[in-house]
Amino acid sequence: MQLNELETPALILDRARMENNIKRLRERLRPFNVVFRPHVKTCKSADVARCIAEPGTPVTVSTLKEAEYFLQHGWTDILYAVGIAANKFAHIARLMERGARMTVVLDNRETGLALAAFCKERNLNLPVLLEIDTDGHRSGIRPQSDDLLDVASAFDRSRSGSGAWLAGVMTHAGDSYNCEDTDSIVALAEQERSGAVTAAQRLRQAGFDAPVVSVGSTPTAHFARTLDGVTEVRAGVFVFFDLVMTGLDVCKQTDIALSVLCTVIGHQKEKGWVITDAGWMAMSRDRGTAKQRVDQGYGLICDQNGVVMDDMIMQQANQEHGIIIHRHDSKKTPMLPVGTLLRILPNHACSTAAQHGSYKVVAGSQEIEAEWPRFSGW
Amino acid sequence: MQLNELETPALILDRARMENNIKRLRERLRPFNVVFRPHVKTCKSADVARCIAEPGTPVTVSTLKEAEYFLQHGWTDILYAVGIAANKFAHIARLMERGARMTVVLDNRETGLALAAFCKERNLNLPVLLEIDTDGHRSGIRPQSDDLLDVASAFDRSRSGSGAWLAGVMTHAGDSYNCEDTDSIVALAEQERSGAVTAAQRLRQAGFDAPVVSVGSTPTAHFARTLDGVTEVRAGVFVFFDLVMTGLDVCKQTDIALSVLCTVIGHQKEKGWVITDAGWMAMSRDRGTAKQRVDQGYGLICDQNGVVMDDMIMQQANQEHGIIIHRHDSKKTPMLPVGTLLRILPNHACSTAAQHGSYKVVAGSQEIEAEWPRFSGW
Repeated sequence: MQLNELETPALILDRARMENNIKRLRERLRPFNVVFRPHVKTCKSADVARCIAEPGTPVTVSTLKEAEYFLQHGWTDILYAVGIAANKFAHIARLMERGARMTVVLDNRETGLALAAFCKERNLNLPVLLEIDTDGHRSGIRPQSDDLLDVASAFDRSRSGSGAWLAGVMTHAGDSYNCEDTDSIVALAEQERSGAVTAAQRLRQAGFDAPVVSVGSTPTAHFARTLDGVTEVRAGVFVFFDLVMTGLDVCKQTDIALSVLCTVIGHQKEKGWVITDAGWMAMSRDRGTAKQRVDQGYGLICDQNGVVMDDMIMQQANQEHGIIIHRHDSKKTPMLPVGTLLRILPNHACSTAAQHGSYKVVAGSQEIEAEWPRFSGW
Repeated sequence: MQLNELETPALILDRARMENNIKRLRERLRPFNVVFRPHVKTCKSADVARCIAEPGTPVTVSTLKEAEYFLQHGWTDILYAVGIAANKFAHIARLMERGARMTVVLDNRETGLALAAFCKERNLNLPVLLEIDTDGHRSGIRPQSDDLLDVASAFDRSRSGSGAWLAGVMTHAGDSYNCEDTDSIVALAEQERSGAVTAAQRLRQAGFDAPVVSVGSTPTAHFARTLDGVTEVRAGVFVFFDLVMTGLDVCKQTDIALSVLCTVIGHQKEKGWVITDAGWMAMSRDRGTAKQRVDQGYGLICDQNGVVMDDMIMQQANQEHGIIIHRHDSKKTPMLPVGTLLRILPNHACSTAAQHGSYKVVAGSQEIEAEWPRFSGW
């Protein structure tokens, strides 16, 4: 099947670009001698994950549905990287009974005590990472905070072979998405590294093993100068890249492996609007570039071959309608004929991919070489 | 099963509120003697649609996947309300072969000519509505425009019993979502009505039958004073309502039938942040209230019973993390204990529901009385 035989909208994955992105991060991380634990929340697809690393290698997930799915597809070493809540303990136990080597994270003593009691009762050997807040972005304990040892004290210092045990620390420098230049990303990567290492050292000084120091975000993974003391790196968006990452100079537009294929269905000529059948349902409502130097609206327009059309963006979105204009001067919008196929590069790969049930895979040509399913929900 | 036995996040549907919303619009429309053609893009669920109207009654869809699904569940009279593109003609034909009475819309002569040729060749009796632009919101032909008769001329004046034929006009006053008060909605409803009726009259004067005048949006359907000359009304969001509709005074907060159940997973006490496991993946990235008088962030917080907690909003969203604060003063944010269940009212029912695979149905109590599946994609 060819691209122009698809019904639109459809999510297109350029396999060649994706493989290049994977190779780039793998090669970048090699000298650092760290475990690579890709975040599969971006792809939610075993077909994509197999291109990143074979089943059996470590992965990071953002939902227990991801854990279920990737376990079923052969990935057993799974970090669930959202602070665990008590209403998910039983699900974690079920995953472990079926062979998953789960690791969970938390940042408060109440949850630590409840989890320790649960694991003791169930005789579960569950590694726990304390979430560290290295950039003020969301969850976690500040590396130098008194809370660190207070939360840690929910766990036994001696690792007895069963029960919940303190395996170390994890942090995510999510604020790297707000950096204004690559020097800032370099600096934030060092802040992420040093904060996590500091926290781990404090735990070790207090008598905990804490062997794991897990860090990562796509920008910091690409710009860290050293990873001394870090044992593993996580990243998710790197596999596809997107316009937010382009705006951060983490990648080029031509590295973006995802696009949404759509069809021109009409015009409002006097306004310079070209109207397509890809609305926010196909692109998501993500406006991640709104705060960047260049606001890409809901996405940047390419022709059917994936070549960027200068200054054409999707400026407005209804549920199943997109409005495309020239970003500077609507009089310059070319009135592309109805039926024209376009491809729209997304602001944020995770949110756009989440709107679709599968990837239509191409590799530099118009031929759809495969359809790879992906899942949603919890 | 009780609400507190669910894993979070989960989409909760209050059936009693929904039924009240349905009754309200049905009773409001009764005196106008129009066909009610609900837009099932909001619910994407046969269980919900059956509460609105039994199978066999008219529906509106926004994707051909919705057409497929609702046809399979017994709804045969289907308006596909997004401008048709040539790459969807064959799919329309397949739906008709399987018993769907499809109606399509378009707003340009090129598509009209292509569709007329396609239907002639396939011997398909397909009613077509011209999309009318009554408010400058997106697609369509202005009611007084010369283009109206130019596009119409793609079709035969005589309805020969087969082929594509001009069945009338449709319009959607999407700009009603931007009204600042209910007087403006009343005025826009009249503009929507009169524009559509004018366009239909022009077509009839030019010799076309054009029996159908289809209008609708949730706000205008609730505020139209007259519907003279209108034959059918469409609305979608009315079934659940949402914060955008509350901001427009179309409904009260206590009418909103959808909420996202989430769990408190941590805090940043010095910032006044309560962190939950419902991020933008669970709420969507829709910020529809951002431009209203009261910006509700990513949603308004209720307790587990669905009672609004004063001035608590979800202010920030990561993929699977939400940050809740007091909207005026973060020092006033109550540090709800980890494990607390909360329900978040959404900005936009269509976009939030689209993030979930099912509705967990309650009716005024904590008991989950049913789980109703819903679908996504194209």
